[in-house]
Amino acid sequence: MRLKRKDILTIEELSREEIEMILSTAESLREVSEREIKKVPTLRGRTVINLFYEASTRTRTSFEIAAKRMSADAVNISVSTSSVVKGETIKDTAKNLEAMRPDCIVVRHAAAGVPMMLAANLACSVINAGDGAHEHPSQALLDMLTVRGRLGALEGIKVAIIGDIAHSRVARSNIYGFTRMGANVVVAGPPTMMPPGIEALGCVVAPDVDTAIKGADVVMMLRIQLERQKDAFFPAAREYSRFYGLDEARVRLAKKGVVILHPGPINRGVEISSEVADGPYSLILDQVTNGVAVRMALFYLLLGAVREDAA
Amino acid sequence: MRLKRKDILTIEELSREEIEMILSTAESLREVSEREIKKVPTLRGRTVINLFYEASTRTRTSFEIAAKRMSADAVNISVSTSSVVKGETIKDTAKNLEAMRPDCIVVRHAAAGVPMMLAANLACSVINAGDGAHEHPSQALLDMLTVRGRLGALEGIKVAIIGDIAHSRVARSNIYGFTRMGANVVVAGPPTMMPPGIEALGCVVAPDVDTAIKGADVVMMLRIQLERQKDAFFPAAREYSRFYGLDEARVRLAKKGVVILHPGPINRGVEISSEVADGPYSLILDQVTNGVAVRMALFYLLLGAVREDAA
Amino acid sequence: MRLKRKDILTIEELSREEIEMILSTAESLREVSEREIKKVPTLRGRTVINLFYEASTRTRTSFEIAAKRMSADAVNISVSTSSVVKGETIKDTAKNLEAMRPDCIVVRHAAAGVPMMLAANLACSVINAGDGAHEHPSQALLDMLTVRGRLGALEGIKVAIIGDIAHSRVARSNIYGFTRMGANVVVAGPPTMMPPGIEALGCVVAPDVDTAIKGADVVMMLRIQLERQKDAFFPAAREYSRFYGLDEARVRLAKKGVVILHPGPINRGVEISSEVADGPYSLILDQVTNGVAVRMALFYLLLGAVREDAA
Repeated sequence: MRLKRKDILTIEELSREEIEMILSTAESLREVSEREIKKVPTLRGRTVINLFYEASTRTRTSFEIAAKRMSADAVNISVSTSSVVKGETIKDTAKNLEAMRPDCIVVRHAAAGVPMMLAANLACSVINAGDGAHEHPSQALLDMLTVRGRLGALEGIKVAIIGDIAHSRVARSNIYGFTRMGANVVVAGPPTMMPPGIEALGCVVAPDVDTAIKGADVVMMLRIQLERQKDAFFPAAREYSRFYGLDEARVRLAKKGVVILHPGPINRGVEISSEVADGPYSLILDQVTNGVAVRMALFYLLLGAVREDAA
Repeated sequence: MRLKRKDILTIEELSREEIEMILSTAESLREVSEREIKKVPTLRGRTVINLFYEASTRTRTSFEIAAKRMSADAVNISVSTSSVVKGETIKDTAKNLEAMRPDCIVVRHAAAGVPMMLAANLACSVINAGDGAHEHPSQALLDMLTVRGRLGALEGIKVAIIGDIAHSRVARSNIYGFTRMGANVVVAGPPTMMPPGIEALGCVVAPDVDTAIKGADVVMMLRIQLERQKDAFFPAAREYSRFYGLDEARVRLAKKGVVILHPGPINRGVEISSEVADGPYSLILDQVTNGVAVRMALFYLLLGAVREDAA
Repeated sequence: MRLKRKDILTIEELSREEIEMILSTAESLREVSEREIKKVPTLRGRTVINLFYEASTRTRTSFEIAAKRMSADAVNISVSTSSVVKGETIKDTAKNLEAMRPDCIVVRHAAAGVPMMLAANLACSVINAGDGAHEHPSQALLDMLTVRGRLGALEGIKVAIIGDIAHSRVARSNIYGFTRMGANVVVAGPPTMMPPGIEALGCVVAPDVDTAIKGADVVMMLRIQLERQKDAFFPAAREYSRFYGLDEARVRLAKKGVVILHPGPINRGVEISSEVADGPYSLILDQVTNGVAVRMALFYLLLGAVREDAA
């Protein structure tokens, strides 16, 4: 079993069968992290480079741990955009890294499209770990894995995604992913954060948060990137919380047994209340656990399966 | 053999038997680093996360090398406090890391108590690699290992700790450790750096450095954190050296065969003269070597011994 | 087979036989990186510390990957000179690291001579990964490996090195290396960047770039460190390109089948045109691939060969 593609760049381009394959593989790899010896020898001698142009403790750590649990060698490169050597293009940087013969480059960059450009120019695999406000495919895969694990299926469920839809690569990847799997996706958020024409991605825009959440099987809250909002894009945190945040009253609008998701890190008391984040419906920490499993699956399906077949 | 505790947070809470067990284990693991192949397979498939909120090349490197020599996977996370993502608490960061299923989180933080808070909230092991001016247990363990290796026993010996007692987690952990093992601990330093009531920890405050050192079996010099002293807490470096620094004249006040320790990095010519630091009584570099052995022992006793027992 | 030296500090001190041994070993190790399982167990249980006082994504990554492909444990320490703990000398830092029993310390530092000073004080191996404007031996070795791979031999060929000769450790190491191997080295560049007396190293100074390149088998362009040139040392980038840059017209002055080298990162349109950098004579990416092989060879010849012999 192996993906018939070199790279994981977007959810948009993945077929339902590919997503199924990734989720099933992740499910079977998830137990590795629950063992005492959390390691399989499958990708011994493979090299994974984590090339992060945006700081990200959590995502980089997840990819690094996933690589190591598959026995691959992981090399981290953190590049603060400001200190990138002047005169060298990202493409040149990547071609140079490729010349060291990695099997996979995991890349995060503030500019949408960078992972695609690299994938088109490199012989090795490329995984998009987040590009601008475009896509973050491994996040959507871990979200789908988490929901499927709890609800059993994605077909026909209602998924509400709430928050800053316009700037969220997490929202975009999840809209593609859940609709591809047959779910109904409804989005809601401040009007200034709702991109015109978002319906073209296959989702419905709700007039307000309560309408979006009503009867939902899944409520996914997005992180408000307070640090990104320089202008008065949205009202103060307290106002945001009142109109767009998830508290227990809003959770009761959803279906019984609703699944609450958040990509983290959470702003307690802003987009989500502590009662909800720490409550029985929250699968926020399961998402993190599943993140390692999904990334192990991606490495396996891109780098490892051929050898397994040959053996 | 295994510690009956999940975490190593303080020396204060360790019994004499526990300290003996750690030192003996470290002694037997010390030879691993002297082999040509410096690695045992004991902790293969375990994951150790070094979560450092304070920069520390030396301690982080020691823990990382210790983990790798036990065959564990080591993942480093350096967080400059200023750049921590706003809105996420340390507890949330740690719960997220825990969800990736590490076996142990090694944490250093400028605030006393952070490792305890994490240990209370996490299922995995937590090792305190230094919390504010509170404790630095692995440092005290390596200091005791070094002294025991040279002098044979800790019972009844006189240990003088000299310097900035008030701000030193090294001093605090060593006072607890050496007194627990039956040694007599005397402290001395500038009056402004001597916390009132320190005797409650089981040590004696000497009126001056010479009195403290007189007849001592061990003299431990503390690092003056020049960068921490913004105010005129203590006289200029030259004055400090004269009144509180260790030179050869002062060494002669101690017992013959005295052991000189310093947790490093040393300020040559301030708290210790080069003649003493590089002289025959100085075990400063043995401390560093023993640091790797002690940390290997802690990983072994927290993470590995059960499996050994089961096999 | 093993080098009869503990350290690799300069090309200047290497004999022709030693360079031959390193290049041959690198040639045989190069295929490891082309395998699916890019790893040999040779240096399992050895510890390599990358101690970089200057930021260098590319060189650090190359050494790290080389160590891991030989199965050694690699530990990275990045020290921004500004944040080095005050009061501790580089020698003390290194003695402390040595006490953790690494087998090799790879060091880069802005000051010429630091690796030699460390090598004289440490029992473990030291590899110079670049010291100020002095030497960068592994770069010259990978350059020689690249040229030998394409041209078959180094004896009697003409090598032109163009650019900022005065500030370039790459130029210095290559002048020593290629002349030692019997090549004729010609240098050219802006007069302000040509150190007086450079002929003493065994090269010829050409009056202009065209003369240097005429009939050359190898043209090595040096990086103009735009960030280093605070003063009006040299004309603007466009001027530089016209007088000292390599474009297709200049390439035609060289011998047919000329080898174009650049240590990277390249400034496209400044010292080298994109047509040339990406053209058929450019071996710039082969240099990077060979860099990993050369570093694997250095680790093997310094740390590993004895054990092989003994087995």
